[in-house]
Amino acid sequence: MEPAALPPVSVSQNSTTEDTRAVAALIDHTLLKPEATSTDVAMVCGEAREWGFASVCVNPYWVKLAAELLAGSGPRVCTVIGFPLGANLTAAKLAEAESAIAQGAHELDMVQNIGALLSGDQDFVREEIRRLAALAHQHGAILKVILETCLLSDEQKVTAASLALDAAADFVKTSTGFSKAGATVHDVKLMRRTVDHKLGVKASGGVRTLEALRHMVRAGASRIGTSSGVSIMHELTATQSMHSPGQSEPPPQASY
Amino acid sequence: MEPAALPPVSVSQNSTTEDTRAVAALIDHTLLKPEATSTDVAMVCGEAREWGFASVCVNPYWVKLAAELLAGSGPRVCTVIGFPLGANLTAAKLAEAESAIAQGAHELDMVQNIGALLSGDQDFVREEIRRLAALAHQHGAILKVILETCLLSDEQKVTAASLALDAAADFVKTSTGFSKAGATVHDVKLMRRTVDHKLGVKASGGVRTLEALRHMVRAGASRIGTSSGVSIMHELTATQSMHSPGQSEPPPQASY
Repeated sequence: MEPAALPPVSVSQNSTTEDTRAVAALIDHTLLKPEATSTDVAMVCGEAREWGFASVCVNPYWVKLAAELLAGSGPRVCTVIGFPLGANLTAAKLAEAESAIAQGAHELDMVQNIGALLSGDQDFVREEIRRLAALAHQHGAILKVILETCLLSDEQKVTAASLALDAAADFVKTSTGFSKAGATVHDVKLMRRTVDHKLGVKASGGVRTLEALRHMVRAGASRIGTSSGVSIMHELTATQSMHSPGQSEPPPQASY
Repeated sequence: MEPAALPPVSVSQNSTTEDTRAVAALIDHTLLKPEATSTDVAMVCGEAREWGFASVCVNPYWVKLAAELLAGSGPRVCTVIGFPLGANLTAAKLAEAESAIAQGAHELDMVQNIGALLSGDQDFVREEIRRLAALAHQHGAILKVILETCLLSDEQKVTAASLALDAAADFVKTSTGFSKAGATVHDVKLMRRTVDHKLGVKASGGVRTLEALRHMVRAGASRIGTSSGVSIMHELTATQSMHSPGQSEPPPQASY
């Protein structure tokens, strides 16, 4: 499993069918609101199959249904651990991860223990991530670590991303989408600089348009978490029908 | 443990020292923001000892520290389970509850599975609560069930409160404080009517003033979850110094 080594994609102004697939493959199609029903989950799974999104990201209770509905298709099942506050006991995060994997989750987006980090307990934060990463890898799953950047200083963001790197996580991720703010270009750049090409960087929270997605990819994001995946894809295909191949713009220098 | 049989308190306009104690005893002094540090937790524990609040309500990671700091004093340790989305697997909620109790939690505020309720799976919702309640009671703890009323119709609120009653929970609670809205007088009345005097009713989310607390108690709340407990107590003691005993107002007809 080499999530940081995903094939580079072009996210140019002038999209081709190939670009469409590449953009879809960046997106974790996300449905985390607590009032989501089985019908809502079924709908996002259908959309994910249709567009070829990287994954469907749902709360743990819905993993089983999503795994059934996505069986035999490309999109993976992503879920969240200790979400969205991160201030759970490690034992509870491990139990949640284990049962989610047993139900069919391939990707785990855990929230780091923000309060422990802000209390200066870096060893605790690193060790917790290390245990979750080991559990994930043991089962062929990957671990993304949500930093919740809007609650951290730049220095703390760098520290947190370094801890995730040390602890052998697969991705660092900006935001839960449930706090004060979501992904920013500044934070994605900072996280990409910190983890270099050793980990993936997932931008999430407030990425609702094709333009926002492009900004994030140019800043270094290799995965996008959004509940606006379908509308972004519609924007992209509308762009395709408006541009001729001659107007092509070179792909941005995205880092992976 | 008879949480529903707490002694009635007067929450009158003209408060006495006795009223002050009674109001404090209604309050779960709450600190659930993910960026809370050990210093913040220590401060709320000190305030809870000072005022004699019912409990300190913190995220599971902070239960151990709170239990140490509150040892030998009146306030209990309250924590949250499956919080704030409720869409976890039952196994994960049980593991979280078990480890929180082991660390010193006396009260568990769990979020019901809102998505399961809205998907029509009442049996699942009831059975999950029943298992959590049994676990809590086995260890001398109590269970409050957060309905997240702002996401439910009135009919669904009544259903949810009835399920918690059937499942032998100890309290129904309005809100997480992390969704679209918090407690309303309307919802507290509806919940009190539904559970009668068999369960407690906790109003939480947006209860920030003495006036709001009074409204909730009059509507039937027997516990108040708020992060504004200290400022409410300051309001109350200021009221005391402004009023003479002759201006006393009869206590409201609060139900417990």
